[in-house]
Amino acid sequence: MRELLVIGVGAGDPDQVTIQAVKAMNRADTFFVIGKGSEKQDLVDLRTGILEEHVTGEYRVVEITDPPRDRTPSDYEGVVDDWHDRRASIFEEEFAAEAGVGAILVWGDPSLYDSTLRIVERVLARGNVTFDYTVIPGVTSVQSLAAQHRIVLNRIGESIHITTGRKLAEGLPDGIDNAVVMLDAHCTFTEVAGDDVEIWWGAYLGTPDEVLIAGNLREVEDDIVRVRAELREKHGWIMDTYLVRR
Amino acid sequence: MRELLVIGVGAGDPDQVTIQAVKAMNRADTFFVIGKGSEKQDLVDLRTGILEEHVTGEYRVVEITDPPRDRTPSDYEGVVDDWHDRRASIFEEEFAAEAGVGAILVWGDPSLYDSTLRIVERVLARGNVTFDYTVIPGVTSVQSLAAQHRIVLNRIGESIHITTGRKLAEGLPDGIDNAVVMLDAHCTFTEVAGDDVEIWWGAYLGTPDEVLIAGNLREVEDDIVRVRAELREKHGWIMDTYLVRR
Repeated sequence: MRELLVIGVGAGDPDQVTIQAVKAMNRADTFFVIGKGSEKQDLVDLRTGILEEHVTGEYRVVEITDPPRDRTPSDYEGVVDDWHDRRASIFEEEFAAEAGVGAILVWGDPSLYDSTLRIVERVLARGNVTFDYTVIPGVTSVQSLAAQHRIVLNRIGESIHITTGRKLAEGLPDGIDNAVVMLDAHCTFTEVAGDDVEIWWGAYLGTPDEVLIAGNLREVEDDIVRVRAELREKHGWIMDTYLVRR
Repeated sequence: MRELLVIGVGAGDPDQVTIQAVKAMNRADTFFVIGKGSEKQDLVDLRTGILEEHVTGEYRVVEITDPPRDRTPSDYEGVVDDWHDRRASIFEEEFAAEAGVGAILVWGDPSLYDSTLRIVERVLARGNVTFDYTVIPGVTSVQSLAAQHRIVLNRIGESIHITTGRKLAEGLPDGIDNAVVMLDAHCTFTEVAGDDVEIWWGAYLGTPDEVLIAGNLREVEDDIVRVRAELREKHGWIMDTYLVRR
């Protein structure tokens, strides 16, 4: 493979793709896509839609099947590390079979809670294949969340803290009263204490299935828990993000 | 004014605009642009380039001159608040004079350290004009920084902290060893202690004048201070962003 393009393609809406991403997609000979099982067929369809809408020439799609992963490990970082290593060897094999320009489409932005760049660095570090690579930034679900709720992520003079459900469960750092939460499978917002907390929540952001809920956390938390469970049941999967602010 | 579109247009590169933003720009009759004085003529030129490249029909550009602002106030939040109020009354007058669709282009994303949405909310709260409004997300300089350095903003299992030079000078919260810094006019990274700190710095991200420096903070900090001063002198202004990581 001569070159690899890691392309952020936004949160799901084909219109949320940048011109830079469209140009990059049109330079690619092969798209490597990561299959995660049938439950995320919606995401496969969204990605196919993006390619069909924006790529004019011929291209190949190579599906790479993710190795299995322990989702509830005691040694979280160690298990993730091992899993990335197994992924890297699978990617290496596929990259070695490609002679032209390869591309990987990333939902949102490759810089935000995405493992693609780590896999690419691992593949290069193994030393068996070499190639140039370029990263194209994209709009994230966090930005979609803010845009749809028409909010600014920071309050005047304050920081922005983006964290995970897992970290939120450990408690926010002192002095942080305003946090964006991603990758939360357990409605951890219900554990945020206080009557003066606001939440802006969104699911399937940037897709036709988008749902938004906002309000005082104590008043809307039960609604969000219920709606989230219903949506997850209906679609077979869910991706949601929220801002909590004291 | 029937409708207002607040459109994130990326960090400066016309290719970094999304398809959604291009479609929104083409719906606008009038673009309200905020003049900040001759020193930022480069930014005016970049914005003009974006409009010329992406808008096919006729449009008007209305320049709104920012009221003066005390840049070194003792009561920081109070002064910013008062300044936003004066801005709101100027915008209200311009909005009232528009009958169709207005648009404001925002560098990066309207949700990240940008005051446009606060101004719009203030104008609406005054109750003298009413209109629908929509926010279109855009790629930020933070994402351009990460893409150009090919880094992930978070380490595995960690949070992402985005802050200002002013907040960094007060010290990072306990447990935060990884921070993106924006709006730093004083090279506050030199005050971050330790020999094991890495920095990824970028200026004029997404523009033809982009400059990147990365490395161990103690080894490259003098270079960044010197290069930053030279660039600021050469261009008459500078916009830079960086990630520091212990």
